[in-house]
Amino acid sequence: MFSNSTRIDIQFGDCDPAGIVYYPNYFRFFDNATAALLSAALGINKRAWLEKYGIAGIPMVDTSSRFRKPSSFGDSLEIRSEITELGTSSFGVLHSAFNRGELAVEGREKRVWVVRKPDGSIGSSPLPDDVRRALGG
Amino acid sequence: MFSNSTRIDIQFGDCDPAGIVYYPNYFRFFDNATAALLSAALGINKRAWLEKYGIAGIPMVDTSSRFRKPSSFGDSLEIRSEITELGTSSFGVLHSAFNRGELAVEGREKRVWVVRKPDGSIGSSPLPDDVRRALGG
Amino acid sequence: MFSNSTRIDIQFGDCDPAGIVYYPNYFRFFDNATAALLSAALGINKRAWLEKYGIAGIPMVDTSSRFRKPSSFGDSLEIRSEITELGTSSFGVLHSAFNRGELAVEGREKRVWVVRKPDGSIGSSPLPDDVRRALGG
Amino acid sequence: MFSNSTRIDIQFGDCDPAGIVYYPNYFRFFDNATAALLSAALGINKRAWLEKYGIAGIPMVDTSSRFRKPSSFGDSLEIRSEITELGTSSFGVLHSAFNRGELAVEGREKRVWVVRKPDGSIGSSPLPDDVRRALGG
Repeated sequence: MFSNSTRIDIQFGDCDPAGIVYYPNYFRFFDNATAALLSAALGINKRAWLEKYGIAGIPMVDTSSRFRKPSSFGDSLEIRSEITELGTSSFGVLHSAFNRGELAVEGREKRVWVVRKPDGSIGSSPLPDDVRRALGG
Repeated sequence: MFSNSTRIDIQFGDCDPAGIVYYPNYFRFFDNATAALLSAALGINKRAWLEKYGIAGIPMVDTSSRFRKPSSFGDSLEIRSEITELGTSSFGVLHSAFNRGELAVEGREKRVWVVRKPDGSIGSSPLPDDVRRALGG
Repeated sequence: MFSNSTRIDIQFGDCDPAGIVYYPNYFRFFDNATAALLSAALGINKRAWLEKYGIAGIPMVDTSSRFRKPSSFGDSLEIRSEITELGTSSFGVLHSAFNRGELAVEGREKRVWVVRKPDGSIGSSPLPDDVRRALGG
Repeated sequence: MFSNSTRIDIQFGDCDPAGIVYYPNYFRFFDNATAALLSAALGINKRAWLEKYGIAGIPMVDTSSRFRKPSSFGDSLEIRSEITELGTSSFGVLHSAFNRGELAVEGREKRVWVVRKPDGSIGSSPLPDDVRRALGG
């Protein structure tokens, strides 16, 4: 399935009083990594693919994360992201964040492809065929 | 002019490796305090006043902040917020955040009342009369 | 086991361009809810229990979250948090966030009790007896 | 005086329900830009210069920001940062953020060089000579 790699430099403000990354920030890093994964697969940025496919977003249904080693500012993380599953209107992603070559954090995601409905609410919609192909289905 | 007071308990994750509030978070606190100020003046919450007046938001034009004393998790801030100026389509706010009775941070804001235009862009719009009266009380 | 309940008012800035809570913020809410859970169990705030027990923090080892219903600014979440497991130097927490009485988000956590070692690194340490009793009640 | 340039890709999660950057995030971007400015001047990263000079940080005393044009995810900002003033134990920075060549946001900062005192509190300390020279004094 499709995969992509991004790099993030951890900043002072990403860290907490214990001096290590405040863990909610990893979910921000992973959200950005998933956006980059789809952008690499589709060849256009997130703003463009939201518009092209008329979707409201790719909200998270389920996510889990395992923190193996703490990282801190001054560290760089290499985040390897790959599609792990393609459902009718959902998909899975696995992120593996490496700090100096060692696996530091893993994150798993299940997301849905959602459209804005006429009444303003949002609801799931089947993955378009070309998206499915690009993601590796 | 109208004024309001809110309280915020500083959390571990609001602080940085120096153990004090990471200063960008004060702008989040002040943004929430301005939302509470307008909500108190108008008697409805931010979601309701965005809808009632058909506005896209009250974006910041200009803000400044002076940090007098550091605060940390375990501290509570009392934020006193007041309208300082009412322009045609803009307004000013002053926030004074007190930690145990001492002035810790001051923030000044100039914001505009903006509507979503037919082409999707956003632009300023005059403050409605009832909003002006409510803020100027 | 010990449980506690907290309430959070969702703010405009907690939400993303889809108009719903940007999901990494739920982990911030849950981190604050776990701090409140321990503070309620131990009768002192997080700053005080970090100092009393000489710990660097209670870092996350593993967390997962299931997002059932989106929430937005103007909504209040009631977060019910309970200890689910007490290991030698770790503990589990389950958070259930309710929006108008409906379960909106669930979060599970496994955290460790860590001390700062003489060399500056951090490592796990057994839960003190009184903490174990307070959490297991 | 010393200047440096950084680039930031604005992410979906940096934006609010109005679809534009949630303004407190600009202060995070600017804090990172100031860290990069000092790192470029001193030839080592922030972790290294905090350690080398034995400082607790460079906390903000005073900051102001003017928001000229909204930016959104999919936009890249070029942030030009320069030292504007060198005091005894403080310094000023001006950030100019450009979006497609147009000035979008300006930020001014006054920061202090602070050390951790024996009693655990933090206080200002004179800028070391080599830092002053590197910053352009």
